[in-house]
Amino acid sequence: MSEANLQPRKDLLDIASLTVDEIEHVLHNAGPFKQLFQRSVKKVPTLRGKTVLNLFYEPSTRTNSSFEVAANRMSADVTHFSVSTSSIVKGESLFDTIQTLQAMRTDYIVIRHQAAGTPGIVARNTRASVINAGDGFHAHPTQALLDAFTFREVCPEIEGRKIVIVGDILHSRVARSTSTIFHRLGAKVAVLGPGPLLPDGRHEYMHRLSNWDDVMDWQPDAVYLLRMQLERQDGQFFPSIGEYHKLYGLTPERLNYLRDKGIYLMHPGPVNRGVEITDEAMVYEKSLINAQVENGIAVRMATLYWLRPETGGSFSETAI
Amino acid sequence: MSEANLQPRKDLLDIASLTVDEIEHVLHNAGPFKQLFQRSVKKVPTLRGKTVLNLFYEPSTRTNSSFEVAANRMSADVTHFSVSTSSIVKGESLFDTIQTLQAMRTDYIVIRHQAAGTPGIVARNTRASVINAGDGFHAHPTQALLDAFTFREVCPEIEGRKIVIVGDILHSRVARSTSTIFHRLGAKVAVLGPGPLLPDGRHEYMHRLSNWDDVMDWQPDAVYLLRMQLERQDGQFFPSIGEYHKLYGLTPERLNYLRDKGIYLMHPGPVNRGVEITDEAMVYEKSLINAQVENGIAVRMATLYWLRPETGGSFSETAI
Amino acid sequence: MSEANLQPRKDLLDIASLTVDEIEHVLHNAGPFKQLFQRSVKKVPTLRGKTVLNLFYEPSTRTNSSFEVAANRMSADVTHFSVSTSSIVKGESLFDTIQTLQAMRTDYIVIRHQAAGTPGIVARNTRASVINAGDGFHAHPTQALLDAFTFREVCPEIEGRKIVIVGDILHSRVARSTSTIFHRLGAKVAVLGPGPLLPDGRHEYMHRLSNWDDVMDWQPDAVYLLRMQLERQDGQFFPSIGEYHKLYGLTPERLNYLRDKGIYLMHPGPVNRGVEITDEAMVYEKSLINAQVENGIAVRMATLYWLRPETGGSFSETAI
Repeated sequence: MSEANLQPRKDLLDIASLTVDEIEHVLHNAGPFKQLFQRSVKKVPTLRGKTVLNLFYEPSTRTNSSFEVAANRMSADVTHFSVSTSSIVKGESLFDTIQTLQAMRTDYIVIRHQAAGTPGIVARNTRASVINAGDGFHAHPTQALLDAFTFREVCPEIEGRKIVIVGDILHSRVARSTSTIFHRLGAKVAVLGPGPLLPDGRHEYMHRLSNWDDVMDWQPDAVYLLRMQLERQDGQFFPSIGEYHKLYGLTPERLNYLRDKGIYLMHPGPVNRGVEITDEAMVYEKSLINAQVENGIAVRMATLYWLRPETGGSFSETAI
Repeated sequence: MSEANLQPRKDLLDIASLTVDEIEHVLHNAGPFKQLFQRSVKKVPTLRGKTVLNLFYEPSTRTNSSFEVAANRMSADVTHFSVSTSSIVKGESLFDTIQTLQAMRTDYIVIRHQAAGTPGIVARNTRASVINAGDGFHAHPTQALLDAFTFREVCPEIEGRKIVIVGDILHSRVARSTSTIFHRLGAKVAVLGPGPLLPDGRHEYMHRLSNWDDVMDWQPDAVYLLRMQLERQDGQFFPSIGEYHKLYGLTPERLNYLRDKGIYLMHPGPVNRGVEITDEAMVYEKSLINAQVENGIAVRMATLYWLRPETGGSFSETAI
Repeated sequence: MSEANLQPRKDLLDIASLTVDEIEHVLHNAGPFKQLFQRSVKKVPTLRGKTVLNLFYEPSTRTNSSFEVAANRMSADVTHFSVSTSSIVKGESLFDTIQTLQAMRTDYIVIRHQAAGTPGIVARNTRASVINAGDGFHAHPTQALLDAFTFREVCPEIEGRKIVIVGDILHSRVARSTSTIFHRLGAKVAVLGPGPLLPDGRHEYMHRLSNWDDVMDWQPDAVYLLRMQLERQDGQFFPSIGEYHKLYGLTPERLNYLRDKGIYLMHPGPVNRGVEITDEAMVYEKSLINAQVENGIAVRMATLYWLRPETGGSFSETAI
């Protein structure tokens, strides 16, 4: 394990607030955890006696399970704190929920919430380590870490590499976090998507492409397809699913182009076949999609390993 | 750990059936378990290999999670037995469910049920230790134990202390169990609430107060606010929420009175801000509400430690 | 533990594909696991560090809990992978779910699915050991194993014994798997049920009876009542519940007959009182219904112990 000369950190809220050293530290430590999966006993006693509480205000089978398996493999106990949708309505209930979790002395809180910034509020008001598992359009930092880890497995030298992200960039916390991490690690990032779904100019490091011809001209090392959030789109930003697929989806022709050039394919999952991706692409030999899932567990273990809750041993009472 | 000269007991169904020695025994043992939460590894191996089955016929995030965390910290395995609401309709299904749990040789059954007396039926028909986590308007004994433990942390000598419980006393299993435990431990208990929601005369130890002026005259050591069960009240017992708040809620003026006199504030959670409590009260420095949550886990660990399932094997005492 | 000279097997998909040696091997190993339940610590470290993933496309409290408790008692970690009903609609999602589970390197997948053959598809596409927990009308092999184990506890010599299965044979995966295992172990199997709900002639080993008089003439050692799937029957195959009960249910008179002859009673649970069974039968002294539940856990532990996932690491044999 790398024991870099880092300040201890309690929470992981987004990628933007991490130093490159911190990013490198987590990515470095994820390696040995992934090695563990090759062993018969895929478990270390590191977090024995610690409690991880999953607090998902938005349903998520994959991310929730990934954190649960990661915590189990660290020997932590995992509790799912069910959140009724109705309780979200009342603004004050979040504060009371935080108080309750604080009082339960849970060591880690993994939170997904539809409102950007909520994990930060929780983090400031609890001694537990808070891991943002996705907040509104803001951030999904463990997704970004697993993306960087996965890409680096095939391209060890990220500096100067080129990644194009395709889809609804504006509303995607994945796009935000993943583009940030690749940029911080020295890669070039471009985006392609329906005009109204592209971010404004303040993200200057995102090179804007207009269509797939531009993508081909730009010669990326990896194409990162975003999941089209079908439930959020009802004809507001583009005419139809068919239209989207035709303009931005990875059609068989575009897949052939990727194959010809040896370009990697990434996607945060779960995929919408026939929308941003096709059946053919799911068996593409340079697809990293399954590696992303596996690496997600390793990166989340490394994150749990890295963070320092203030819940035990000697801690000072904090009034909130 | 206190090894008082007590008869072994299989189940915890209510407070009324406990001896004072038994109450003291559980409260005494909860202390070391709470100390454990200060440690980095908040876990003891005491119930390793035991199965705790949570059987909640009414939804409850907090109590369910509290028992789950308590069981985890004892190293027991916890299974949530989902109960579909539809199966409640058929009276016979409970018996068949008991048979199934019995056959699974689960060691502890934590049950919440809307019908008073159900945990007792389960207890009589299974070798598992049954812990009542709330049954109808009847009892919620672990709530009472955590309340007594919490109050004693700030007032070690309960004898002669005065606690006033405010709210819908009649329909509250919390009021019933908590008033009983304080009475048994020598405290004086008063109640305040809408007339139709006060209990009849058979609970003679409950001193009835008519309004907040009476409360102030009575000079309590703690005010225990009940949660207004909004879903159960539709104008039957009092005109409106606003009316309730005005007559019985802890308004800022009443909070000032508590602060002036140094009176403790308790509430079983979750709170309804603007109904029985206000935002100001949530940060009141003599509020014990968060302590109640934390102590809930310790008291439930002490309860699991105390009870003796008859599910096989010789149970050897394990030091914690 | 029997260390029979068997080929390692990755999956348990149905009974038909097992050799008699394999069946005997699992039944033999279930014994010591059941003995474990008599001990104070009902747990062995055999599967420490392994992950069991429960993937239930049909709701099931009992089978799901039984596998969870079995896995816990083997020291495995259990994750429930929630499957939204909506995702079933899209045919391709199963494949993507398999890919995800494969990437998570879960060691065991316990799957229930409404479409026959689905567990086989999952098994062929993952390195995890797949256990079929019921697929459509096809198979429910661990139910059959627990049935055979339970019957053998009271009738050690199955060869030549006679079991009659009563109910909707045609649509029952239980009937299919359980009749197969009894047949393979040398017992005689008969069936009774509404004509349209009996299987066609290809299952020649199933002796068809026409009514309860026939059952009595046939002199069975055990009567195995199937659960009437009320939700699947809406007057298509027989006129009414009352009619069904009168013609095929275990009425008090028929129970008396069983009692007179010392015939065992079995049922996979949960029972429908007043339909295939009556209150009286639930306390019948030769009912094996509760034993079936308990043995279900032991047989599932033996199944987990037997199968060999291909998920990495050298699997070292652990004596229990």
